[in-house]
Amino acid sequence: MAVLLSTKPAAMAMWRDALLAVDPALEIRMFPESGDPADIEAAVVWTAHDMAELRRYPNLRLIVSMGAGVDHLLRPPGPPPGIPVARLVDRMLTTQMGEWVLLNVLRFHRQDLDYRAQQRDGIWNELPAPVTAETPVGFLGLGELGSHAAGLLRGLGFPVLGWSRRPKQVAGVESFHGADGLAQMAARSRILVCLLPLTPETRGIVDARLLGLLPRGAFLINGARGQHVVDADLLAALDSGQVAAAALDVFSPEPLPAEHPYWTHPRVVMTPHAASITIPASAAPQVVENLTRARAGESLLNLVDFSAGY
Amino acid sequence: MAVLLSTKPAAMAMWRDALLAVDPALEIRMFPESGDPADIEAAVVWTAHDMAELRRYPNLRLIVSMGAGVDHLLRPPGPPPGIPVARLVDRMLTTQMGEWVLLNVLRFHRQDLDYRAQQRDGIWNELPAPVTAETPVGFLGLGELGSHAAGLLRGLGFPVLGWSRRPKQVAGVESFHGADGLAQMAARSRILVCLLPLTPETRGIVDARLLGLLPRGAFLINGARGQHVVDADLLAALDSGQVAAAALDVFSPEPLPAEHPYWTHPRVVMTPHAASITIPASAAPQVVENLTRARAGESLLNLVDFSAGY
Repeated sequence: MAVLLSTKPAAMAMWRDALLAVDPALEIRMFPESGDPADIEAAVVWTAHDMAELRRYPNLRLIVSMGAGVDHLLRPPGPPPGIPVARLVDRMLTTQMGEWVLLNVLRFHRQDLDYRAQQRDGIWNELPAPVTAETPVGFLGLGELGSHAAGLLRGLGFPVLGWSRRPKQVAGVESFHGADGLAQMAARSRILVCLLPLTPETRGIVDARLLGLLPRGAFLINGARGQHVVDADLLAALDSGQVAAAALDVFSPEPLPAEHPYWTHPRVVMTPHAASITIPASAAPQVVENLTRARAGESLLNLVDFSAGY
Repeated sequence: MAVLLSTKPAAMAMWRDALLAVDPALEIRMFPESGDPADIEAAVVWTAHDMAELRRYPNLRLIVSMGAGVDHLLRPPGPPPGIPVARLVDRMLTTQMGEWVLLNVLRFHRQDLDYRAQQRDGIWNELPAPVTAETPVGFLGLGELGSHAAGLLRGLGFPVLGWSRRPKQVAGVESFHGADGLAQMAARSRILVCLLPLTPETRGIVDARLLGLLPRGAFLINGARGQHVVDADLLAALDSGQVAAAALDVFSPEPLPAEHPYWTHPRVVMTPHAASITIPASAAPQVVENLTRARAGESLLNLVDFSAGY
């Protein structure tokens, strides 16, 4: 039996080495060289892999996403019926996303875009001191990534608000849910951080209406999926000053086309879907653990909830 | 009896209001309008104030620095003999400096200068994931500011090292002291943060020798005083690649002259002595408390140790 990997070649080689370091007895195949389809019992795949292709493997018993998001696995036609799908919940993914959120919250809170512009223009000018306790940060999404990042900001003294689909309790976070809760939280968020899963309900959630509810001059940070944001609405809000600046790691499509206005917008800070990069050596043990459980018919870790869409 | 304030006019007005909010019975004078010199019992002054001038006040019993640093008070001729000098130890100063250090550590750790350059050049390219546990941060100075910032980085999972004049124990920080300790710590610091007091021993401590001991491609963050850094040595280290980038809040002199190469250096991130700005409303209670103690002949808070120079 074998594990099929599918992503960029350099990353596949890292995954192969990491999985073999955990279990040297594993047989690894690298897509498109799958060998005999009957050999494949697990597929560890990233966003470009075609779900229809996975129907070729009659003995497949586990599909694993190489990242925290699984929207790419669930879009039509979706995974083969009856095959469990797991995502990665990895300390290093959570740590990296926390750092990226923190970097961008502090960048905006500490007027860094203004200080960069002053340096460029040769201006020595102290701006008014920002007050952390008066800078509420609102989180869209309080899952693994959102609740970790929220905790870091709470520790620094930021008031932290959080919105999720269902009511949730996270220590030190004032929680909201539902449409009314979304509007209430937005109205108080100086900085809005999106770490939601992408589902039909959350697609386009950051639109003109939501951006218009923020305090004037608020900041947006999106580390989730490009499809959460209506780009034309965000650009209009940036140009009107309703949104002072945005930090974006994710786009639709990716790579972001060369002519897209985000590239050159002075109030957009871009990273190329690099806020949180899967490190195979860190993630491999849970993949092997899930494969062992699948073979033994035991319950799996970090299973995707198809009804919720994440 | 009266309190003399001396700094920029806008800041003096904030100090006046903040002190009166704590004790409405105080009489406040704003330099240069000192009135009768015999009235002045306390002087709350910032860096530009001439220490010789303070010898005019026969009833002076307390001098307070408007910031954490006191080097400006101790340079010749120094404060009038026998008059106690206090500095501010203020939660909001400590918080702001911690945020500024954290912003710049994360900026460097998360390759932000490279990602800014990629955005400017229209390049979509994921850089290798940085590993927090393999990025030691070394602190020069483990006082109020240094130990607070060190704790924040420890909490994020960075290995934290610290050097101070005398041996010191700070939880979670591997401590060094003396000349040998300085060299040992430098050799292991991917990011070096200077938060030292400025004394004859620390002036010019960040020179070609110390920068040469860092791992190649290390980063420097200076939130202390410009005189800690030998500017020509830092510029040479930046140009050779020995130092990958520097974040500087302090300079010698200030404001930094328009023709100085830091302004336009692509690997220097400047702020105009704004990492930690005294907020009079936060600092006023300890000034009033110290004045009350001085009147009663009691021991004062946050006294400067003249023998140590800070």
